[in-house]
Amino acid sequence: MHAIIDRKDLDFLLFDVLKIEEFSSYERYSDHDREVYTATIQTAYDIAADKFLTHYVKADQNEPHLIDGKVKLIPEIGEAHEEYIGAGFLSAGRDYDDDGTQLPFVIQTACNALFTGANVSSFGYLGLSQGNASLIDAYGDDEQKRLYMEPIYDGLYSGTMCLSEPQAGSSLADIKTKAIPTEEGHYKIDGAKMWISAGDHELTENIIHLVLARIDGAPEGSKGISLFIVPKYRVQENGEIGDFNDVTLAGLNHKMGHRGITNCFLKFGEQGDCHGYLVGEANSGLRYMFHMMNHARIAVGCSAIMLGYAGYLYSLEYAKERLQGRALSKGKDPSSPPVPIIKHADVKRMLLQQRSYVQGALALLLWAAKLEDQAKYSPMPGEQKKSAKLLALVTPVVKSWSSEYCLKANELALQILGGYGYTREYICEQLYRDNRLNPIHEGTTGIQGLTLLGNQVPADGGKAFFELLEEIQSTIHTAEQHENLKLYAQLLAEYSGLLKEVSIKLIGAMSNGDLEKALCNSSLYLDSFGLVTVGWMWLKQAVTLHEQKSAPYDEDFFNGKLHTCAYFFNYEMVRIPTQCEILSKMDHTIIDMQENWF
Amino acid sequence: MHAIIDRKDLDFLLFDVLKIEEFSSYERYSDHDREVYTATIQTAYDIAADKFLTHYVKADQNEPHLIDGKVKLIPEIGEAHEEYIGAGFLSAGRDYDDDGTQLPFVIQTACNALFTGANVSSFGYLGLSQGNASLIDAYGDDEQKRLYMEPIYDGLYSGTMCLSEPQAGSSLADIKTKAIPTEEGHYKIDGAKMWISAGDHELTENIIHLVLARIDGAPEGSKGISLFIVPKYRVQENGEIGDFNDVTLAGLNHKMGHRGITNCFLKFGEQGDCHGYLVGEANSGLRYMFHMMNHARIAVGCSAIMLGYAGYLYSLEYAKERLQGRALSKGKDPSSPPVPIIKHADVKRMLLQQRSYVQGALALLLWAAKLEDQAKYSPMPGEQKKSAKLLALVTPVVKSWSSEYCLKANELALQILGGYGYTREYICEQLYRDNRLNPIHEGTTGIQGLTLLGNQVPADGGKAFFELLEEIQSTIHTAEQHENLKLYAQLLAEYSGLLKEVSIKLIGAMSNGDLEKALCNSSLYLDSFGLVTVGWMWLKQAVTLHEQKSAPYDEDFFNGKLHTCAYFFNYEMVRIPTQCEILSKMDHTIIDMQENWF
Repeated sequence: MHAIIDRKDLDFLLFDVLKIEEFSSYERYSDHDREVYTATIQTAYDIAADKFLTHYVKADQNEPHLIDGKVKLIPEIGEAHEEYIGAGFLSAGRDYDDDGTQLPFVIQTACNALFTGANVSSFGYLGLSQGNASLIDAYGDDEQKRLYMEPIYDGLYSGTMCLSEPQAGSSLADIKTKAIPTEEGHYKIDGAKMWISAGDHELTENIIHLVLARIDGAPEGSKGISLFIVPKYRVQENGEIGDFNDVTLAGLNHKMGHRGITNCFLKFGEQGDCHGYLVGEANSGLRYMFHMMNHARIAVGCSAIMLGYAGYLYSLEYAKERLQGRALSKGKDPSSPPVPIIKHADVKRMLLQQRSYVQGALALLLWAAKLEDQAKYSPMPGEQKKSAKLLALVTPVVKSWSSEYCLKANELALQILGGYGYTREYICEQLYRDNRLNPIHEGTTGIQGLTLLGNQVPADGGKAFFELLEEIQSTIHTAEQHENLKLYAQLLAEYSGLLKEVSIKLIGAMSNGDLEKALCNSSLYLDSFGLVTVGWMWLKQAVTLHEQKSAPYDEDFFNGKLHTCAYFFNYEMVRIPTQCEILSKMDHTIIDMQENWF
Repeated sequence: MHAIIDRKDLDFLLFDVLKIEEFSSYERYSDHDREVYTATIQTAYDIAADKFLTHYVKADQNEPHLIDGKVKLIPEIGEAHEEYIGAGFLSAGRDYDDDGTQLPFVIQTACNALFTGANVSSFGYLGLSQGNASLIDAYGDDEQKRLYMEPIYDGLYSGTMCLSEPQAGSSLADIKTKAIPTEEGHYKIDGAKMWISAGDHELTENIIHLVLARIDGAPEGSKGISLFIVPKYRVQENGEIGDFNDVTLAGLNHKMGHRGITNCFLKFGEQGDCHGYLVGEANSGLRYMFHMMNHARIAVGCSAIMLGYAGYLYSLEYAKERLQGRALSKGKDPSSPPVPIIKHADVKRMLLQQRSYVQGALALLLWAAKLEDQAKYSPMPGEQKKSAKLLALVTPVVKSWSSEYCLKANELALQILGGYGYTREYICEQLYRDNRLNPIHEGTTGIQGLTLLGNQVPADGGKAFFELLEEIQSTIHTAEQHENLKLYAQLLAEYSGLLKEVSIKLIGAMSNGDLEKALCNSSLYLDSFGLVTVGWMWLKQAVTLHEQKSAPYDEDFFNGKLHTCAYFFNYEMVRIPTQCEILSKMDHTIIDMQENWF
């Protein structure tokens, strides 16, 4: 069994750094206070620890398999599913009138982080249902909400997102699934979808697929994609389950990790009898799907961070207990007793590296989640729009920087355990295998780099990006007031300045049509962008430590945070200037390489 | 099925870059020529492809397990074992008089690279036997050679190395296994050994363990360790197998990868009846074991490189065939057909990154292997000693830089395949899991960093290090003669200059007793050292391309090599100055972090 999170860290980030209590000035959240938030998080923690964490290994070792055409899961997944829904987490963000508790999205995110950190696969079913229902809520009509969304929120149905096809993964413009209008008003769906997580199982009596398809005669490319609700079983007018809807499981994918959640190859309409119900307008499907996709990207970042966090805590405990070798400072006398390996510099390095990644990325994730609340409900003039744009800007970073760095964190956790880490008797190898998916699904790192540099940064002439830089600047100004943060303030000013310069240059090149050269290092751009924003989060934490005069932190917590900030600046962010130089000169070594030269 | 290596690359490295044919001036190798070498490599390639590669996946899926106390392996492992030995590879390096073919070590390494690249686990049994026999050859007495070494070379017995214990992995000074002298001349061995690869199986009729243990009353620490031959079954005077020697399999470890080879927890002398035979002098065991250990470190580097190479070739083929998206340069028109993903900049980046790691590290590996031949048989005055020292110097780099970077290569290969890469239906995830062991066994990266910076570089006042720098300098001089290599020559001069400066500074600090601060960034030092030496290998390859006038290279090969060199200089080596700055100021952020601050 492993620990999920350092609760003190989570509270620090939510209440001290992000000052979530300020939400009491939001009408929607005016009933809530720190006590409510803390109690909710505690409930989440308890359920996560008791019902999710407990079968993390078992679910990995007992992959879903078919018995008589039905998907068989271990029973613990169903129990965890019920518990989560029973405690009200699935619909916690909904209105009081809809039996929700109007919980801010950032607190929901913190709670879901605990579930995903305890058991990423088992939580997957729930996360998808939540995203699916939220999409129908946003774009479905009343009938669709009644028939499909409400039963999901009630835990009777579950939901999926069906985008990829075997021949179209990153390139959604090429999906081929067809939707043929019928006189009865529904569409006939015909096609195949790949990589569908939670695509089939018996956890719920029905599964509601959200399927991207092309209506006959629609324009080519992404402008001709529509979104359909496609239930596994049709739902009758009175809400009762009707006929099988011709959605068949053509195969289960066998993955390196994430083994507790089914991942399916699904066929729609093999018998020509699959009904789909159009969501919103025709040909606007990709836009609607991005409602769910953007949440999923945040959720992927969250899962990467929490797997990283679990590995960090596990390897930290191990490093405190495992005795091996002597301290260099003590002259390595073999007659002295061996020391815990945490005393060795290289082990400390690996712990600091993990800590700086997972706690830094967690801060960024929660900051982004808070933006969603601000975007919807902020009473401050202009803040809704600004927050929405900032969130869109940083979503690729939360998704991809976190997946890349927190996978590295898991690699280091395993390394600290040495030979033991490489065995399946210790949790680190599973965390590492599970985390390896995160740089891939919901848009690979390469795709996110292109999205960030090609779309989000240049949007509105870089408006959101410049607003982000202003926020960073404001943290720098505050940091400058504190003697022992001056250096980091100065460094962050320098680094964010470099990022700004290079961004302006690349935006310029793109608007001059030099797309290929401007974008050929976009993964490196995303990495630099992530280093700057996560570095900013570390400085924000350091500032908070110094400003929170009323409830001073205990010395260990204070020093630990400050020192991890120092590590991130001294060892990680130092790469920024070199990377910005490559970006700035639009180095084209990579695109100059011809295929036949490989 | 996947490809093992680009044969053209291997030939280029061996014959053009390293000029192996010059060995004809060595008396021992005077019979050999390029034809012999090429034929031997071709035989190795054929057996590797037909007998090893063919069960790479099957061995992973059918882990060794116990039936009636005996270890059960899939039969293909035994067949591969026989074929390798039957073709004479096990004893290829031995004298003609001993039925060997006096094959140079570097060619043996190239052959073994093919076997390990085809099936790292199945080759493991053989690699260990080879190392074990070679140690007995070097330090055993005639009787030990007759009774234990010869049957290994004949394929009747196999061998292991038994160093680690459950409580002593990296810290061999703390091993507890006891050796009690008896009046009959043998020792009674009493203890437990952990992580013993090939520690038990039925491939051969006997298993010869080389066991580190302490003779009663020996000095504490590494100075009190002796080396013993401990057979699974005792061998009688006439060479026949005798009684069971009380070596019991206490457990099989279940690993993330490397699943085809048993990894054992062994108990020696549980019944008080385990005989061990002292090798060489008492208390010199660690020095003898390093004969095998150093070969094992080279072999680990080799395995890392070849797993990386296999992933590179696999993902390259995939990238040429998988159609997805449109080229940015063509305006992403959705009505145009999708392009192979190799056309996308970020996929090219991931291919170049892999290629620069695996081909660069392979060059360094073969250069190091050639040093072993020079160290033993060079007719040039002084070259034997110099080569031995250079080899000792770079062994930690070949081992650890290759394991770290080629693991990253496998991570990228998997990424190129996207969702498919994450499934067990494609080879990349197995290559990645298999490679994850390499930064751990035979000395972790942390240990290798300490060895490099704490021992090898400062040895003899830095003599070997300065000789390495001279070799690098000589390549720089040649490169300067070629217009389009001048830039890289200049960069390598700059970077190797920085490494020199920082090394001198750190050697100075260590000799002033400031061990802790000088060594606290030793992993970063190893990384920088690796970047400089692998960069040197890339420049050496680029120079070779330009100097080989007699048989000019085809344009694709020429451009591909030159361009990968450019990539390595422009994207990878650029980290060196920043890293050297951290090293040079002896940044102590890491050691300042206190345990209770985590």
